[in-house]
Amino acid sequence: MQTKVFLKESEIPKQWYNLAADLPTPLQPPLGPDGKPVSPDMLAPVFPMNLIEQEVSQNRWITIPEGILDLLLRWRPTPLHRARFLEKALDTPARIYYKNESVSPAGSHKPNTAVAQAWYNKQFGIKKLATETGAGQWGSALAFACALIGLECKVFMVRISFEQKPLRKVMMQTWGATCIPSPSPETKAGRDVLAKNPDTPGSLGIAISEAVEAAVTDTTGQTRYALGSVLNHVLLHQTVIGLEAKKQLKLFGEKKVDIVIGCAGGGSNFAGLSFPFTNDKIHGAKIEIIPVEPTSCPTLTKGPFIYDHGDIAKMTPLLPMYSLGHSFVPAAIHAGGLRYHGMAPLVSQGVVEGLFKPMAIPQNECFSAAMLFARTEGIIVAPETSHAVAAVIRKAKEAKEEGKEKVILFNLSGHGLMDLYGYDLFVQGKLVDHELHQDEIDAALAELKGLPRPSLAKTGKW
Amino acid sequence: MQTKVFLKESEIPKQWYNLAADLPTPLQPPLGPDGKPVSPDMLAPVFPMNLIEQEVSQNRWITIPEGILDLLLRWRPTPLHRARFLEKALDTPARIYYKNESVSPAGSHKPNTAVAQAWYNKQFGIKKLATETGAGQWGSALAFACALIGLECKVFMVRISFEQKPLRKVMMQTWGATCIPSPSPETKAGRDVLAKNPDTPGSLGIAISEAVEAAVTDTTGQTRYALGSVLNHVLLHQTVIGLEAKKQLKLFGEKKVDIVIGCAGGGSNFAGLSFPFTNDKIHGAKIEIIPVEPTSCPTLTKGPFIYDHGDIAKMTPLLPMYSLGHSFVPAAIHAGGLRYHGMAPLVSQGVVEGLFKPMAIPQNECFSAAMLFARTEGIIVAPETSHAVAAVIRKAKEAKEEGKEKVILFNLSGHGLMDLYGYDLFVQGKLVDHELHQDEIDAALAELKGLPRPSLAKTGKW
Repeated sequence: MQTKVFLKESEIPKQWYNLAADLPTPLQPPLGPDGKPVSPDMLAPVFPMNLIEQEVSQNRWITIPEGILDLLLRWRPTPLHRARFLEKALDTPARIYYKNESVSPAGSHKPNTAVAQAWYNKQFGIKKLATETGAGQWGSALAFACALIGLECKVFMVRISFEQKPLRKVMMQTWGATCIPSPSPETKAGRDVLAKNPDTPGSLGIAISEAVEAAVTDTTGQTRYALGSVLNHVLLHQTVIGLEAKKQLKLFGEKKVDIVIGCAGGGSNFAGLSFPFTNDKIHGAKIEIIPVEPTSCPTLTKGPFIYDHGDIAKMTPLLPMYSLGHSFVPAAIHAGGLRYHGMAPLVSQGVVEGLFKPMAIPQNECFSAAMLFARTEGIIVAPETSHAVAAVIRKAKEAKEEGKEKVILFNLSGHGLMDLYGYDLFVQGKLVDHELHQDEIDAALAELKGLPRPSLAKTGKW
Repeated sequence: MQTKVFLKESEIPKQWYNLAADLPTPLQPPLGPDGKPVSPDMLAPVFPMNLIEQEVSQNRWITIPEGILDLLLRWRPTPLHRARFLEKALDTPARIYYKNESVSPAGSHKPNTAVAQAWYNKQFGIKKLATETGAGQWGSALAFACALIGLECKVFMVRISFEQKPLRKVMMQTWGATCIPSPSPETKAGRDVLAKNPDTPGSLGIAISEAVEAAVTDTTGQTRYALGSVLNHVLLHQTVIGLEAKKQLKLFGEKKVDIVIGCAGGGSNFAGLSFPFTNDKIHGAKIEIIPVEPTSCPTLTKGPFIYDHGDIAKMTPLLPMYSLGHSFVPAAIHAGGLRYHGMAPLVSQGVVEGLFKPMAIPQNECFSAAMLFARTEGIIVAPETSHAVAAVIRKAKEAKEEGKEKVILFNLSGHGLMDLYGYDLFVQGKLVDHELHQDEIDAALAELKGLPRPSLAKTGKW
């Protein structure tokens, strides 16, 4: 029986898929502080123009430049595995498949967009990139990409993760990047947070403010900001995952897929796997598509669909998305990459339109799922990925109860070899579940009251 | 241009290659304390009989059981990469290829034999395996294999590595194994060392004694010992690496290879890549085959070819091998997997017979090579693997000086994501080179004086 399938280098996708072209309702634009749509020019100090054009593109298929394909081929195409050992342990009639993005040199799916963003910035004459990172997967990936392409790289890493995972810094240094804990005294945004709350664990929202500030305040004009998730062009670059997976499912002999699952922090790995299948769903295929988030940061399951800032200091435009409020600081769970108050607009709108059915799972159930996965499939997954695994297990058990041969596909977005501290606490029984109470959510959401509401919000919850 | 080639699952080698069948002079047997050859029965308390039979087999090709193929297919075949970005940085006419064993779930080549040994033990009715580990690659691999197969696993980890890499323990725990620092108070061998030298960094020779003792003193008879290198059957299991690489070089259009390189601690990853090419060399091909070791543990380049014990407590038989003496404790370099006083008998005899040309390289040159590799090829290699990379760079520079289009193949035996502490010290300029002086070597070798000498020793150095 087949355990996994590769694709040849020549079979790598040559185009990215842009869901924005196929959404039932057009994506609503980001808004400036004046409540008016942000023009491409206004984003120019933050991103290079070639990426801004991609961000607003309505083209369904966007050709991947040769130079980027050449970078992707360092590790792509990635294998698609059949999880038949997990299936056996669950005694489920479901057939479970996973796309193994952990084989990239940085250990996750993040390099898919990191090499693309680095390449476009280099083309545009930029010399240095500034970014934030949660658990470190994104910062490592951008450091890796900048090393290959020849750009300087500076990473603001959420403090709690910086402390939990000190070797992430070394990883970035090895690729020539600098990495400092956020909030830092290096930026005004960082200093403001530290003044109010010196012991803050930090958050992605804070770190984004710092990185954007570092980019726009470089007076040479040769620094730009790079984001590892949320934005349209980032999600676009990740669609190679789902496009490869489609070809590979056929090689396994599968004619259809019933359930597609990915963990969702900012939304990029989920989008990368699911968007090509979402296209099928829009055109009539019956597919359940599930973004999975932590119960401690339940953006999609408890937040409203609204216009909110991507960062705490309101340096980013207002984005139409699900949000828990831009100053929400999630509990210090080990899935640092899922500790984000907002969600990609494309994923958010997909939820509003009923294309995606989000699910929230507590941390201990996720680590428990990850332990079972490690001891059956053999791969120690990232704490973020463990959310997808936990959802898969729930769905595989449902399939067993229903006696249905469901085909389940999920994204193994990264390995957990840099995140073993969380596993250690779990084995020792010391891991805490952070269920967010409604009054905490209400308090966080209070700051959203005056903000504009996307016109689609009527179909949302708030 | 091709960056790497995969093989299909159906193209995985179906047989292991046994160099013992082709050595110009037959391999000499291990000896017991009485100086007489050890019979298979005498090894029965240590290893299951099916592996003992494999250890002494003279068959050239040994069929890989379906059950083991099924386990290997979790991650094999591994990709073969062309290092064209490193080539460019070195401006060399050499074409450099590497077999990427870092994509296994445990991060190295070690699972190739771990799953085989676990499978044979399980077949034989064994319930538990005891082993030692240096840097942790082997212990992790055996823990991984035991999880998949359903065996208990106990790992004695060399103390200096246990302290440098605390998360290795967590990795093994995640796969259900227990891991303790060696020397430990749990065994007589460990207690003896601790009594003499409570602050010892430990060594593979000490940890082997403890693991063998733990296996043979289990009165239920259901525990055996597993070794991650050195022995014939271990090297045999690794030959899938070289057998796959041969097919893949052809897919790259290469008709011959000029230089084959692997780092060598006990010899298994070196053997796994090189033995199938050694067969070609024995039959007339002109290939330079280089095992690379640290200057701080120069077994092949400074030790004699002699009969010595594999461990400090003399629990193992006497093996015909290069050795620095069984109580030699190497300096605490970061390539923990290369800190072994001896060398696989098959590799040792290959050196005596002139098939292999060993090379020793100091630690800082190796980390420097690894940094260049990370920033060109993108992969952060294990400190052990960095020795192979350093040798490749020396050879690629030679090719440039000579203006020759050499084809160089090396084994990327593992990634360094669990070993970033060494990179941190290197970046900070704090890494020390431990060049071993002749008087230290002479002192270590003194204990070998009374031991038997293999008949082939006349062609050796001592």
